[in-house]
Amino acid sequence: MGLFDGVEPSAPTVKTEVPGPKSKEQIADLDKVFDTRAVNMLTDYKASIGNYIADPDGNVLLDVYAQIASIPVGYNNPYLKEAMKSDEVVDSLINRPALGNFPSTNWASILRSGLLKVAPKGLNQVFTALAGSDANELAYKAAFIWKRQQQRGGYNVDFTEEELLSSMNNQSPGASELSILSFKTAFHGRLFGSLSTTRSKPIHKLDIPAFDWPQATFPLLKYPLEEHVEENRKAEQDALAEVEHLIKTWHLPPAAVIVEPIQSEGGDNHASPEFFRGLRELTKKHDVLLIVDEVQTGVGATGKFWAHEHWNLTTPPDLVTFSKKAQTAGYYFGNTELRPNKAYRQFNTWMGDPTRALLFRAIIEEIEKNDLVSKTARVGDYLYGKLEALATKYPGQFLNLRGKGQGTFIAFDNPKRDEFVKKAKSFGVNIGGSGASAVRLRPMLTFEEKHADILIDALERIVKSFA
Amino acid sequence: MGLFDGVEPSAPTVKTEVPGPKSKEQIADLDKVFDTRAVNMLTDYKASIGNYIADPDGNVLLDVYAQIASIPVGYNNPYLKEAMKSDEVVDSLINRPALGNFPSTNWASILRSGLLKVAPKGLNQVFTALAGSDANELAYKAAFIWKRQQQRGGYNVDFTEEELLSSMNNQSPGASELSILSFKTAFHGRLFGSLSTTRSKPIHKLDIPAFDWPQATFPLLKYPLEEHVEENRKAEQDALAEVEHLIKTWHLPPAAVIVEPIQSEGGDNHASPEFFRGLRELTKKHDVLLIVDEVQTGVGATGKFWAHEHWNLTTPPDLVTFSKKAQTAGYYFGNTELRPNKAYRQFNTWMGDPTRALLFRAIIEEIEKNDLVSKTARVGDYLYGKLEALATKYPGQFLNLRGKGQGTFIAFDNPKRDEFVKKAKSFGVNIGGSGASAVRLRPMLTFEEKHADILIDALERIVKSFA
Repeated sequence: MGLFDGVEPSAPTVKTEVPGPKSKEQIADLDKVFDTRAVNMLTDYKASIGNYIADPDGNVLLDVYAQIASIPVGYNNPYLKEAMKSDEVVDSLINRPALGNFPSTNWASILRSGLLKVAPKGLNQVFTALAGSDANELAYKAAFIWKRQQQRGGYNVDFTEEELLSSMNNQSPGASELSILSFKTAFHGRLFGSLSTTRSKPIHKLDIPAFDWPQATFPLLKYPLEEHVEENRKAEQDALAEVEHLIKTWHLPPAAVIVEPIQSEGGDNHASPEFFRGLRELTKKHDVLLIVDEVQTGVGATGKFWAHEHWNLTTPPDLVTFSKKAQTAGYYFGNTELRPNKAYRQFNTWMGDPTRALLFRAIIEEIEKNDLVSKTARVGDYLYGKLEALATKYPGQFLNLRGKGQGTFIAFDNPKRDEFVKKAKSFGVNIGGSGASAVRLRPMLTFEEKHADILIDALERIVKSFA
Repeated sequence: MGLFDGVEPSAPTVKTEVPGPKSKEQIADLDKVFDTRAVNMLTDYKASIGNYIADPDGNVLLDVYAQIASIPVGYNNPYLKEAMKSDEVVDSLINRPALGNFPSTNWASILRSGLLKVAPKGLNQVFTALAGSDANELAYKAAFIWKRQQQRGGYNVDFTEEELLSSMNNQSPGASELSILSFKTAFHGRLFGSLSTTRSKPIHKLDIPAFDWPQATFPLLKYPLEEHVEENRKAEQDALAEVEHLIKTWHLPPAAVIVEPIQSEGGDNHASPEFFRGLRELTKKHDVLLIVDEVQTGVGATGKFWAHEHWNLTTPPDLVTFSKKAQTAGYYFGNTELRPNKAYRQFNTWMGDPTRALLFRAIIEEIEKNDLVSKTARVGDYLYGKLEALATKYPGQFLNLRGKGQGTFIAFDNPKRDEFVKKAKSFGVNIGGSGASAVRLRPMLTFEEKHADILIDALERIVKSFA
């Protein structure tokens, strides 16, 4: 039984090219006040339902991009709609608290019944934020503060006069000369600190000042995995050795290593659980924090609630960041020493958003009620099998198929990727790319076998049209 | 006629110390999952109304701090409550768009009927964000991109191969060696770029890596102004000379200067319209952008919708950032060349939040319907007069009274500031500080003469209790 059985269409409707005439007119109008050069599809959200996205020209497409992987349980989900009509939500919208100074009497209960209910194992606290970029930057700040406390001689050692004065001039020792180590082809956001760790594409980074922080090679696995076992193992070992070398030698020592369970924006690059366990060991060994960026991988799409559950770590990551499908953002942590040693060091006016925390709570309830995470694991296996068959049938079209056992978080490369993604709309599917040549599948958690069949059919028609 | 006549209390109720026993118990419980060291007052938002904030112990205080200056039109404002129950709002909450890729069909109309209706004169476009920090950082990015386009030889000149490659390594020329010039004691946020321009207190900055960006002295005016005309003029001329010197000589040349119309967090530091006009001239002369940070000053509290309207500029600022009372954030601009020359350079997943844009629209409607900006100018004058009288009656207690003609955006220094602010609660008022010694008044736009009388009475009782 699908969540939207009987309410969503049984197949896509393609009436015009996308954008069609009405969309074009409205986009031109919007462009007068808002940059529209990145517009993919002007969207009629009222007419969108479940797994289907609609536009003003009457096109209704199966959506496996889902607002850049951020819609969790379908458009116009009726359970969310009811939840968002509650007095609690309206109150939280019109009386937005400065949570650090004036938390609401229900904030503890909102956290416990929502965000903390799904906290990664071993992490029992949360610092809330507004989007993935600032969640990561707040985690970086927590890491810098923690590392400097340690270097200073412990949690309760006070700042020196020199630190206090130099901090105001953006100089060391007050401003620390530390770094965050990230991986090549990683994406962690676009603000100044997060962008310094983002290494996916020049267009994100050009002209923006950046910190001189280190980057390690992310192991670039070869597919099919079973044919490249030794090569891939070596790539991962080399990557770990490079991480260790950079930790030991970089002129601005890393306070933390940040990594995505699957590099998403950067091209759907996977690594093995062994690699991530090795990274956990290395960071432990060198007393550097491990930040797992679950902004895109979190909340079920990989067939586990958090993608790092696939790794079977013996000690949890130090910090796990989230956003997108959670519809709110922040970082989880367990070690109380990651609370800075004084108040107001990790602080801002709003410090998160109770309305969105309530929305995430409703999302969690909807996921649990309908068992959507294990369902996504099952549908992902089904979809992966069908894609394997397509890859065999159309050699050279579904290259480096990846994401086996990772729910619906699946990708493949296509030599004409941009055309592939564009053409998908004419066959009824809204689909995204990642990196230089990947087609990334990011369906919602409400994606069923029947949707997989429609998707597979469309993909086959796209590659046939290339012939 | 006050907006909350008949529904809000006629006076504060003080039942216990703050926090009282119930609050203390609940704060201890919250602390298990959320850092509470900065908690000022656990708040019962359901019981708060209009200008009054309530806690679980039955204390109901006149609130002239207003969630760090971010509540615009009163707690539980009935007009906002109705607006937030609309289908349009519920739809926008449950179907959150990735605005850059999939804008909603009503996005242009939401912008035009809300955000853009109150755009500062000369600025007809907006880039939406989520909070003050990221609004400022996005403005910085726009400035860096613009300046490098100019240095490269124009809007349409493409990147070099060297730029593309070096950007991925966080190195020049791809990562620019430019800066943002800010002022000493300024506050512009706490993410890595914005924090590099924040110079208010070490506690915000300690241990966080920072860019080596320049800071100029903000003119520290002496009060009363009429007794220090020449001295203050000289302080402002010296500050402008320092700005010019830094623009001409700093090793990382500024792409923009950012300034608050009134330095808020940093101590309620004012400067004259002449100073700001001088700054506009200087930035024009040296082809550097002027960013006006209206995060705390915007949306009416100074008796104008935007505080920089007090300056009578002949050419508008290049970018104006906003957040707080707008309940959403972003930057306004006018020059179309501040749209980067290619798509995806200024981009992120959500790029703002239609729900909050709808909330701001309702706030604007409520402000216009009730003429709250000119009312705030009037009540501010009334309040300022009463404070002048208090300052005369209690010498040494209301020092450097400032904000004349700036609506209710008024402050004074007190030698026992921390105790003053703490004690205010026992006399029925919730009040905040800024900088090292300022008491900052930040009432909502619904603050009336009758509230001013209650506030004045409480202030008098506080200083009497010091005797």
